[in-house]
Amino acid sequence: MSLLVIGTVAFDEVETPFGKSGKILGGAGTYIGLAASHLVDDIRIVSVVGGDFPAQHLDLMKKHNIDTEGIRVIPEGKTFFWAGKYHENMNIRDTLVTDLNVLADFDPVLPESYKNSEYLMLGNLTPSIQKRVIEQMTTRPKLICMDTMNFWMDIALDDLLEVLKMVDVLTINDEEARQLSGEYSLVKAARKVLTMGPKFLIVKKGEHGALLFYEDKIFFASAMPLEEVFDPTGAGDTFAGGFMGWIAKTGDVSFVNMKLAVIYGSAMASFTVEKFGTEKLTQLRPEDIQKRLDEFVQLVEYKF
Amino acid sequence: MSLLVIGTVAFDEVETPFGKSGKILGGAGTYIGLAASHLVDDIRIVSVVGGDFPAQHLDLMKKHNIDTEGIRVIPEGKTFFWAGKYHENMNIRDTLVTDLNVLADFDPVLPESYKNSEYLMLGNLTPSIQKRVIEQMTTRPKLICMDTMNFWMDIALDDLLEVLKMVDVLTINDEEARQLSGEYSLVKAARKVLTMGPKFLIVKKGEHGALLFYEDKIFFASAMPLEEVFDPTGAGDTFAGGFMGWIAKTGDVSFVNMKLAVIYGSAMASFTVEKFGTEKLTQLRPEDIQKRLDEFVQLVEYKF
Repeated sequence: MSLLVIGTVAFDEVETPFGKSGKILGGAGTYIGLAASHLVDDIRIVSVVGGDFPAQHLDLMKKHNIDTEGIRVIPEGKTFFWAGKYHENMNIRDTLVTDLNVLADFDPVLPESYKNSEYLMLGNLTPSIQKRVIEQMTTRPKLICMDTMNFWMDIALDDLLEVLKMVDVLTINDEEARQLSGEYSLVKAARKVLTMGPKFLIVKKGEHGALLFYEDKIFFASAMPLEEVFDPTGAGDTFAGGFMGWIAKTGDVSFVNMKLAVIYGSAMASFTVEKFGTEKLTQLRPEDIQKRLDEFVQLVEYKF
Repeated sequence: MSLLVIGTVAFDEVETPFGKSGKILGGAGTYIGLAASHLVDDIRIVSVVGGDFPAQHLDLMKKHNIDTEGIRVIPEGKTFFWAGKYHENMNIRDTLVTDLNVLADFDPVLPESYKNSEYLMLGNLTPSIQKRVIEQMTTRPKLICMDTMNFWMDIALDDLLEVLKMVDVLTINDEEARQLSGEYSLVKAARKVLTMGPKFLIVKKGEHGALLFYEDKIFFASAMPLEEVFDPTGAGDTFAGGFMGWIAKTGDVSFVNMKLAVIYGSAMASFTVEKFGTEKLTQLRPEDIQKRLDEFVQLVEYKF
């Protein structure tokens, strides 16, 4: 089934304790699309890049079943650029550069053929932009998932709260869940967030896994303990891509199936962090994914 | 089967965002013993208290199948006292008072009847004391589990490394695993620690769960997301007590059974933090524990 992705397509430059990436392909939309591409073959992406964006990156997306008609190219503009440096504790990073460039005036216009997409993933962007995307849909998608971050809670909370009322699933990290709800306990925080619009809340805890909240139910998916986390960039977006890819593939938005989507998202994220940028995500074979899914089962399996 | 516990029996005074405990029963040995008492009825404890230690606390232990012959009472001395204050983020606490008192000269002498105990839990204490306990055993226990902390890595590393060679299971937290191994990745850290003596390593991550490492296998047990964490004091010791209680009850030291012990320990720890001190641990009924164990199953259950 069709999955529409809204998100940045960008250049990243990353430094970790293991080395420097140089200028590489990045952006939330890119990670979401590539992760989902291992599950669905009808992916559409809406984004914006500058004239400096190489055709090879667009070709890579096309090769991964991603329709790039919705990526607007502004020839005289420059592509969004982010540079960051991770500490030895890779949960901490310093942003070195954020050049919005063409993203500063991004006003997404959905191609006609995108407007009836069955599933919609709103990558982390200005809430008002996320809203304008939803408003352009001619058919209400079967599931809308939205990612956001503390930055928008700080500077555009009212807009954020408006979009929240329009979506089904919200993905944020634990600190953001606390900030949005004003509750320290994640259980209490989730209860509050679930009154703000979304029926499902996913709290991403990075190396500590992810929690899925629905009504009074909680599901916890561990992250895979890895020999080496090489570059955490894009892990959250990869998670969202794997999650929505699974939902779009199965067409099942039940809590039971959403648990599988969370595991799938976690598995995909565990690959992304093993190499710089999107490298691992573009090399994955179906058997690699199956093996990792089996490892996820073994990791938590026990029987009294 | 018989479980021997070595650990502090103490007074604690705790302040959390939810209130103050006043001077209450505490100590690693106390938590370990009470947690294990829900599973085994032959528990012996070796510790030391002062003349100020109320008989009612000893009676409480006896009521929970804990033989207190090994608790030496020094009438002219004062009981070990610890006071601490937790931040709103309860992973952070400040120690306000540490009065070692009678603990300063603690030199455990095992009653004759304790020396052939089948299972041994060494609570967090000076490594040289832990060693002297092992040396007094006439029969090598079927499993020795040892808890320790960064403090001993800082000031008594050589002693610590010596005891490590004598034990089967080590329980430490994630930062301690990193410090002991010099490796940031927990997978690499575990591999290194498992060359130092213990066959099993348990890495406690508090609200983020616990990892069990054995050979090249990893098992992850989630912590239960709780409505309210009231007082985290004793959670790690409760975990160890539940863990060793399960092992002593089943008499099975296989990796498969140790996974169940980790779940049991996590379940018991999830109770301890719901009230001040040992309050919840002494009120638990078998049906409460069974219900919590069921919740642990549901929390991570999924099927592709």
